[in-house]
Amino acid sequence: MEPANQLHVPIRTIMTPGPVEVDPRVLQAMSSSILGQFDPNFTSIMNETMVLLRRVLETENHWAFPVDGTSRAGIEAMLCSVIEEGDKVLIPSFGRFGGLLTEIAERCGADVYVTHCEWGQVFEPQDVIKQLKKIQPKVLAMVHGDTSTGRMQPLEEIGNACRELDVIFVVDAVATVAGTPVKTDEWKIDGLITGTQKCLSVPAGMAPLTYNHRIEEILQERKSIERGLNSEKHRSSRRIRSNYFDLSQLQDYWSPTRLNHHTEATTMLYGLYEGLRLILEEGLEQRFQRHRLNEKALVAGVQAMGLSLFGNEQWKLPTVTCVRIPEGVDGDSVRAMLLNEFAIEIASSFGSLHGKIWRIGTMGYSCQKRNVLLTLAGLEAVLIRHKVNIHSGEAVQAALDVYQNKSLAV
Amino acid sequence: MEPANQLHVPIRTIMTPGPVEVDPRVLQAMSSSILGQFDPNFTSIMNETMVLLRRVLETENHWAFPVDGTSRAGIEAMLCSVIEEGDKVLIPSFGRFGGLLTEIAERCGADVYVTHCEWGQVFEPQDVIKQLKKIQPKVLAMVHGDTSTGRMQPLEEIGNACRELDVIFVVDAVATVAGTPVKTDEWKIDGLITGTQKCLSVPAGMAPLTYNHRIEEILQERKSIERGLNSEKHRSSRRIRSNYFDLSQLQDYWSPTRLNHHTEATTMLYGLYEGLRLILEEGLEQRFQRHRLNEKALVAGVQAMGLSLFGNEQWKLPTVTCVRIPEGVDGDSVRAMLLNEFAIEIASSFGSLHGKIWRIGTMGYSCQKRNVLLTLAGLEAVLIRHKVNIHSGEAVQAALDVYQNKSLAV
Repeated sequence: MEPANQLHVPIRTIMTPGPVEVDPRVLQAMSSSILGQFDPNFTSIMNETMVLLRRVLETENHWAFPVDGTSRAGIEAMLCSVIEEGDKVLIPSFGRFGGLLTEIAERCGADVYVTHCEWGQVFEPQDVIKQLKKIQPKVLAMVHGDTSTGRMQPLEEIGNACRELDVIFVVDAVATVAGTPVKTDEWKIDGLITGTQKCLSVPAGMAPLTYNHRIEEILQERKSIERGLNSEKHRSSRRIRSNYFDLSQLQDYWSPTRLNHHTEATTMLYGLYEGLRLILEEGLEQRFQRHRLNEKALVAGVQAMGLSLFGNEQWKLPTVTCVRIPEGVDGDSVRAMLLNEFAIEIASSFGSLHGKIWRIGTMGYSCQKRNVLLTLAGLEAVLIRHKVNIHSGEAVQAALDVYQNKSLAV
Repeated sequence: MEPANQLHVPIRTIMTPGPVEVDPRVLQAMSSSILGQFDPNFTSIMNETMVLLRRVLETENHWAFPVDGTSRAGIEAMLCSVIEEGDKVLIPSFGRFGGLLTEIAERCGADVYVTHCEWGQVFEPQDVIKQLKKIQPKVLAMVHGDTSTGRMQPLEEIGNACRELDVIFVVDAVATVAGTPVKTDEWKIDGLITGTQKCLSVPAGMAPLTYNHRIEEILQERKSIERGLNSEKHRSSRRIRSNYFDLSQLQDYWSPTRLNHHTEATTMLYGLYEGLRLILEEGLEQRFQRHRLNEKALVAGVQAMGLSLFGNEQWKLPTVTCVRIPEGVDGDSVRAMLLNEFAIEIASSFGSLHGKIWRIGTMGYSCQKRNVLLTLAGLEAVLIRHKVNIHSGEAVQAALDVYQNKSLAV
């Protein structure tokens, strides 16, 4: 059989909602040699990663560590560890990733109550709170920023209500952490999950999460009741259905006792550590400002071209911009030409929005002036090739104006 | 708050059963820039990885891809996709990782039948076949090489019996693939799981697996029955309990339709591709010979020192050598001195063997002459410091003899 070719990876400008570009310093850290999982040098990297994660997630929670898997692995770990068969779970869904929460909760055996709102909108917090009072669920699970519709749900009022009503509040903040403020403790979020491949700007493959004592009590209770039950049938009804995603075992592995569970993903952890370090070196507030600035420049450019945005402007997710595909234009053909001629990637969309919007990400290391200007220039050229009637030459100028008048933008 | 320190990783000689050292060419490949998951350049790396995996796993199965998680993530994906509530599963267990199979199968809701054999032994295939006939399980799940006891179970006879009796044969080959022959098709294994951090010599974080049409039929049947059922209760009783580990969804993502599931772990996949490529460049048979040669040299050295091995010699796992800790010696103190003074890591052990044996791995890129000689020299020096009465100066000589008379060793 023929020998396989050496890996060849072309350079891309990645302007999607993830995976996004990675700072070369993160990749450099990831090329460090392997350490054993119980090597004191490695366990100290584990401990330091927990410290950095708490700062990035704005929490005082003791537990803050990555699950070794992509974002949805973290979501599943959180939900399957908290939810027991028959538990009521309320999921207000405003996009595809609310659908993912729903599917995972159903597979956990939950009694799931889903409410939907029109794609492009978010929920009025008081409406969610009404539902909470009516349904009285054990858990309210919600997406913070849903990349499928480019909307961001305000969470603070809902978090306060959950705490008052003694409902566990779980938030998927995969698309927002490190790109826009996510205040875990202030918003009274009990369990929060994020992913590496978006604004953390680390390769896909880890799902950092955090949870407080309210969730830890559920884990401990399940474990102790399970141990106390005599019959296997009752025991298994309370047992977390997964070994890999059992947060009570994961926290034992991340604690000083280091009870053996999986073998921590060495190189990915190096990347996460370095990615978090760079976020804190930049400063959270400065990082959010950078994200806002580049978003504003992108939006100004897109609009100056004559294109319009999708969705309720007030609740726009700052890290994803949804652009309406002009009537009669083949969106995938535009994306393909952008990739083939300019090596720029933007995203298509899901479900009912497919063919109707492009989604342009401004996340993490991809979120920089050079990328925004190149994307606008490339998109304009490709649209002209597709014979779309746009205001030629104005997009990049509008973006440059934003960069030159930063105070206007932020 | 103080800025975090830049990542600092010291160089180690890692002689454990994993994670092991990684070829610098793999780390180089992993420093390639990010590609979008639907970028044609990325999907072609996914396709080529499947081709390489089939060759390394010695199978013609269509499905051969990694699960994004550490080894046990692959085991759980296989078991939870195949096992339904109440299914009979037989697990002959000869070490700790048989225990892991048991725990996962129980959490899947299986009716689990476990048989044990003394640690240090393996099962007589005919005894397993008798059990098979008596219990008539849906699934027989077994470990190939159990690193906890350093034993390797012969599988071919058992595989033939499973096929005849129409039992699904699932094998955890985490510790053996690419270090010693694992003949998926020839041994009639229906589902096989491995991990990256052992003889594949890629960082921990992926669990490559393969399965044949017999397992695929189970997946398709569960999916179609689930869709046909009206009541949510019946539907959920057949449904795979995990979204992340649902092999029917994973195979759709790895098929040309590319149905969106998770975001494939970009950088880890680069590493897996390159690791597999280097295995095939070396050649499977040559690689197995290298593993045998270094194992023989290590064993010769250990025995020349006057130390003895644990377990039934006939079924020794070639990639792990279990060494009895001499009476009265603190095994962890020896390991700590070896790490602190020589930067060499060997492993302790689990359960009833803790404090009784050391486990020395000869796996993947760690499995090389330099490492074996250094480990013997280091271990000898440390044992002398611990006032153990050994045959000083003979270990390295015995190993060198093996290297110089290769024909004797292999």
